[in-house]
Amino acid sequence: MAEKATVTLLTDFGLKDPYVAEMKAVVLSICPDATLVDITHEIPKYDVKMGAYLLAQSVPYFTGRTVHLAVVDPGVGGDRRPIAIESRSAFLVGPDNGLLIPAAEKLGLKHVYQIENPLYLPSKISRTFHGRDIFAPVAGHLARGMSPINLGREISNYRKISFPKPKITSRKITGEVIYIDSFGSIVTNISAKLLDQANVKYGATLKVAWGKLRPKRVRFLENYSLAQTGALLATVGGSGFMEISTNQADAAKKFKVRRGMKVELSL
Amino acid sequence: MAEKATVTLLTDFGLKDPYVAEMKAVVLSICPDATLVDITHEIPKYDVKMGAYLLAQSVPYFTGRTVHLAVVDPGVGGDRRPIAIESRSAFLVGPDNGLLIPAAEKLGLKHVYQIENPLYLPSKISRTFHGRDIFAPVAGHLARGMSPINLGREISNYRKISFPKPKITSRKITGEVIYIDSFGSIVTNISAKLLDQANVKYGATLKVAWGKLRPKRVRFLENYSLAQTGALLATVGGSGFMEISTNQADAAKKFKVRRGMKVELSL
Amino acid sequence: MAEKATVTLLTDFGLKDPYVAEMKAVVLSICPDATLVDITHEIPKYDVKMGAYLLAQSVPYFTGRTVHLAVVDPGVGGDRRPIAIESRSAFLVGPDNGLLIPAAEKLGLKHVYQIENPLYLPSKISRTFHGRDIFAPVAGHLARGMSPINLGREISNYRKISFPKPKITSRKITGEVIYIDSFGSIVTNISAKLLDQANVKYGATLKVAWGKLRPKRVRFLENYSLAQTGALLATVGGSGFMEISTNQADAAKKFKVRRGMKVELSL
Repeated sequence: MAEKATVTLLTDFGLKDPYVAEMKAVVLSICPDATLVDITHEIPKYDVKMGAYLLAQSVPYFTGRTVHLAVVDPGVGGDRRPIAIESRSAFLVGPDNGLLIPAAEKLGLKHVYQIENPLYLPSKISRTFHGRDIFAPVAGHLARGMSPINLGREISNYRKISFPKPKITSRKITGEVIYIDSFGSIVTNISAKLLDQANVKYGATLKVAWGKLRPKRVRFLENYSLAQTGALLATVGGSGFMEISTNQADAAKKFKVRRGMKVELSL
Repeated sequence: MAEKATVTLLTDFGLKDPYVAEMKAVVLSICPDATLVDITHEIPKYDVKMGAYLLAQSVPYFTGRTVHLAVVDPGVGGDRRPIAIESRSAFLVGPDNGLLIPAAEKLGLKHVYQIENPLYLPSKISRTFHGRDIFAPVAGHLARGMSPINLGREISNYRKISFPKPKITSRKITGEVIYIDSFGSIVTNISAKLLDQANVKYGATLKVAWGKLRPKRVRFLENYSLAQTGALLATVGGSGFMEISTNQADAAKKFKVRRGMKVELSL
Repeated sequence: MAEKATVTLLTDFGLKDPYVAEMKAVVLSICPDATLVDITHEIPKYDVKMGAYLLAQSVPYFTGRTVHLAVVDPGVGGDRRPIAIESRSAFLVGPDNGLLIPAAEKLGLKHVYQIENPLYLPSKISRTFHGRDIFAPVAGHLARGMSPINLGREISNYRKISFPKPKITSRKITGEVIYIDSFGSIVTNISAKLLDQANVKYGATLKVAWGKLRPKRVRFLENYSLAQTGALLATVGGSGFMEISTNQADAAKKFKVRRGMKVELSL
């Protein structure tokens, strides 16, 4: 028998409706021993890119037998294909709209299969809720130990999503706001590694500009508590990327920063 | 030993307070092996009917040994009775205010028992939180394999809730808005089966009126992506009923539609 | 092998971000059999005292082998220490800022250990997310059966938090609003026991004043349904303390009551 599996769920469904519970019910009906873990269900509706980002952030921490079930699926019931991915360390199941790819690549993408074998699907499939009727049963079967080669043909023309990379010159790094978390921390795509290469050391004062605001002087500190309460600082966040925060206040709200804004770091 | 059981929870408690966790703690203290699944805790406060609707939507997807623990309970501590229901495929536990009945009927209601045996209850019972002090321990015992006949006398005068049924003439179907989901989809009580009987085919253009708004022309489509982004459409939702949605936008907000409004469908 | 353990989680992270899921992933990577229970993740950001209050409310209901993992941690990465507590009936893991103490004292605090043994920590520890990189792995090891004496030295100078106690004279009880729940119930620090000592009986009419409002006449009733819909009442809540509520309406909103306000009860 296979090792006890974890099935994670990430959707844009929210928790008001019973949709997430229906998906969990289907997973458990096939794999009653699965441990279910919600990644988040608060992806902004239809925001495939945000879903892809947060999924890729979380998957590396799941080390046992894991199936990641992700549904942000504006094209449900249309011609976008349902897929299952085998990576080096986990399976991923969801729509072929790019949602799964950054996470799969982080885990070492090996094979992408189109889900088409009716043997692993219910006889009646809603055209508006593949999360419950296609992705959940497939996640259940994979969690139970089924090989994904049973699901359908392997494909290589799956849709991809990628995230912008920062540009570096000798005088500045131009990155982008990639995420704003619930603390108001402004997460950039500028990695700790890149800061290190640019010789930015803890304690340094950086000049940071975003949007149309005048550049701000921001200290690069190891943790929030080194800044005064309410003061702006740059840190390396839990994901290994530079974040701009205020100690115990919402930096993004204060400076009206939004995802996608350019962040310019003068060296 | 009984098969590993699932205990689902549906309440109007929200997730800010520790009340749901206290219920789960009590269930696990009696049945440590139970798998806990939240259906939703965002039922509008005291809205028994909404709770009954969403519970009935979700229960059919749980196929293993399951106990549904539901608490929307404005009459807590008063003379409304605590009950446990045996249905063909699951147990249900909660207040005798109608909350459990539509779900139990969907699963095949067999027996309704009044919970009165102190053997299965804690020695100290709060008068304001029966979810934790009566329903959770009973759910734990049922999950662990106890027969519900031990709980108390069988009753037949339990309170019922029912949902309005649509009216059909040769020229129109008059239904009702039964739920609005977090996507803004307007869920009606007009079933796919009824549309089929009325000979409404995919691709047809329907005339739909709700509230006091002028009738709108709405295409009946198999899935959202067949409509243009932002365009209104009618589909069959995941629950098998007609929904009126806009592709990737919030139809209910746009047209100020509320639960309980009449929906008139000209044929 | 140790009994199946429960790991509870309480944070101020919310559920939008993947942070809670990353902590759960780490716990499961060390203790795959753990049952995970969310207490709440909606503690107001940085509100250690509120976290301490709600943790202490919930822990008594977990009776099996349990590890309580709690993170409200404005001082993360600074000089506040990470600690693990052995109490009579459960372990608690989190920052040394008082968060864990009221709960641990309720359960019978036995030993407090500073977490410092690198053997139980990942090789790379983020300075901004100890929840995932220190507290979660330690919770996983404790859940799996490791003794907390392996974590580091025992300390006695840990930070404490305590809650205000009501003052009693022969004519009045002066308490405080300690919590406002999602129903709008105003939870005070006046215990049922104290009311009993003051000879306050169900059915009595109390004069209650809070903030600068004129005293209100409030009936002390056994449950909400004994008051008319919308009427103010005092009850003993699920936590054993006096609550002021309105039957099926939000008392705190109506009277603009906030946590920390004085509550004066004339006898």
